[in-house]
Amino acid sequence: MAMIEVSVVPLGTKSPSVSHFVADALRVLKSAHGIKYELTPMGTVIEGDLDVILDLAKEMHRVTFSPEVKRVVTSIKIDDRSDKPLTMAGKISSVWQKI
Amino acid sequence: MAMIEVSVVPLGTKSPSVSHFVADALRVLKSAHGIKYELTPMGTVIEGDLDVILDLAKEMHRVTFSPEVKRVVTSIKIDDRSDKPLTMAGKISSVWQKI
Amino acid sequence: MAMIEVSVVPLGTKSPSVSHFVADALRVLKSAHGIKYELTPMGTVIEGDLDVILDLAKEMHRVTFSPEVKRVVTSIKIDDRSDKPLTMAGKISSVWQKI
Amino acid sequence: MAMIEVSVVPLGTKSPSVSHFVADALRVLKSAHGIKYELTPMGTVIEGDLDVILDLAKEMHRVTFSPEVKRVVTSIKIDDRSDKPLTMAGKISSVWQKI
Repeated sequence: MAMIEVSVVPLGTKSPSVSHFVADALRVLKSAHGIKYELTPMGTVIEGDLDVILDLAKEMHRVTFSPEVKRVVTSIKIDDRSDKPLTMAGKISSVWQKI
Repeated sequence: MAMIEVSVVPLGTKSPSVSHFVADALRVLKSAHGIKYELTPMGTVIEGDLDVILDLAKEMHRVTFSPEVKRVVTSIKIDDRSDKPLTMAGKISSVWQKI
Repeated sequence: MAMIEVSVVPLGTKSPSVSHFVADALRVLKSAHGIKYELTPMGTVIEGDLDVILDLAKEMHRVTFSPEVKRVVTSIKIDDRSDKPLTMAGKISSVWQKI
Repeated sequence: MAMIEVSVVPLGTKSPSVSHFVADALRVLKSAHGIKYELTPMGTVIEGDLDVILDLAKEMHRVTFSPEVKRVVTSIKIDDRSDKPLTMAGKISSVWQKI
């Protein structure tokens, strides 16, 4: 089990407000079963099998294209451990415990 | 008012567990006055004046060095608008409203 | 045709020098046919069909694990246009022409 | 001596072609003395004193704003070692030697 953070940025839109494109990309995750995700102010964190969540990230990238959006810059950051599963709750609580 | 996401990664540590380094970096924010921040599973989001929050990111990077940690890779992503202030709460609610 | 930048960071490696891990990941690209790539001081840029190059990025991430390396943080940035193919040479010359 | 990679992405530009904005940001580096930089297909790598190069990254971010560009998303990745200076040439040759 791994974790990724995905951020999808459409270029060449008429307005600097792009939240409806982010909403379109998030709908990809809403219809995926058995996947945990969290919207943060700067991206979306997804937890699960690496192959599965990377495919979801690719789909989030793809659905952002439209006749209005001809260029998309997508950042994906993978955090992956072989010695233990990574979970969103585990990472957060592990930091707060130390403070 | 802008927003940044900061992620600090120490290299060459003996263990793959690095949450106490993240905790050290977060303490920089706890002692900063009038700054809003949020720890996410993949980084820390900070909201405020761009000069101020970039200085905090630099400080988070610096405190991660120690005799054990001789290399630090830090990612900073800036989201900045001139037409209206960006807030963490505003960005999140703007996306959820569209879903 | 799209472009990605990949950066693979192994954690818990005892030494802060990680170039031989980067070399292992680069070998994945050397043995891939028909793929253009360029090593930069901060990552590797790969040009080609998006599905193909994302699979290569995943493979670069995977080969970095070993008994010594139990955690890998990999950043992938996609730049993708639907109106025209993106090439490394094209992007660079397009900027220099304007200076 | 540290190294950063900077990528400046203007939003809401109507056209998906943004190379003239990248050119404007690069001009900031051309007029800085004693700074080594390299334009790559996905960003700009800058080598030097960390305070100096982070100030340059901030300036590259700022000059991208205009009446046409009201939102800028800028990614900065810092690679920094306390045990030895990082240079672009050194990092690249260190990897190639191992292949």
